[in-house]
Amino acid sequence: MIKISADLVEYPNRYVFMVDMPGMKASEINLRVEDENIMVVTGERKREQRQQDDGVKYLRTERMVGKFLRIFSIPDNGNKDRISALCKDGVLSVTIEKLPPREWKEGKTIEVKSA
Amino acid sequence: MIKISADLVEYPNRYVFMVDMPGMKASEINLRVEDENIMVVTGERKREQRQQDDGVKYLRTERMVGKFLRIFSIPDNGNKDRISALCKDGVLSVTIEKLPPREWKEGKTIEVKSA
Repeated sequence: MIKISADLVEYPNRYVFMVDMPGMKASEINLRVEDENIMVVTGERKREQRQQDDGVKYLRTERMVGKFLRIFSIPDNGNKDRISALCKDGVLSVTIEKLPPREWKEGKTIEVKSA
Repeated sequence: MIKISADLVEYPNRYVFMVDMPGMKASEINLRVEDENIMVVTGERKREQRQQDDGVKYLRTERMVGKFLRIFSIPDNGNKDRISALCKDGVLSVTIEKLPPREWKEGKTIEVKSA
């Protein structure tokens, strides 16, 4: 398992998770929303070239490769039915719209009588 | 200074440095070739949104931001005049063509006489 770094940004009407995925394409990233307001990002980062290819030799390998799995909690007022994701420049952005603020219905006033 | 990870791959006719730059655009990366077969990559990684923007709040910040500087040695048989660079999917690839193998000129044979 390799480590992936993420930011969480709150906007007035949405949350955005920004996850570093250098070299990954959208088709290589799996994003699932589970029960209990859980979002799971999985995938595998591979080297661009295989060591065994003819005449290809890695002289240095600092970039981490391997499988990754990361679990994020969706904020309480995030709308699980309004989630979209985009991968660009090696960064995955997952946007979660906020639920509208709970509306307080006009209550019925109860007269407080004096005894 | 933030840390950046790099691989170095050797092909039959070229070397390729692969450098993770998630979220960075080509225009934000500086690449210089110096004397003594040195190549320098510099730049600054910034957050996509500024904290002080109206209504924007970073709830989590794991992704490293800040300036970076990394010095790479160009291999001895790398051609400093044939270097190209491309940034794609958050990975900077710097390709350095190899110099042609040194040719051994047909030497002159010296007869070894017995004393």
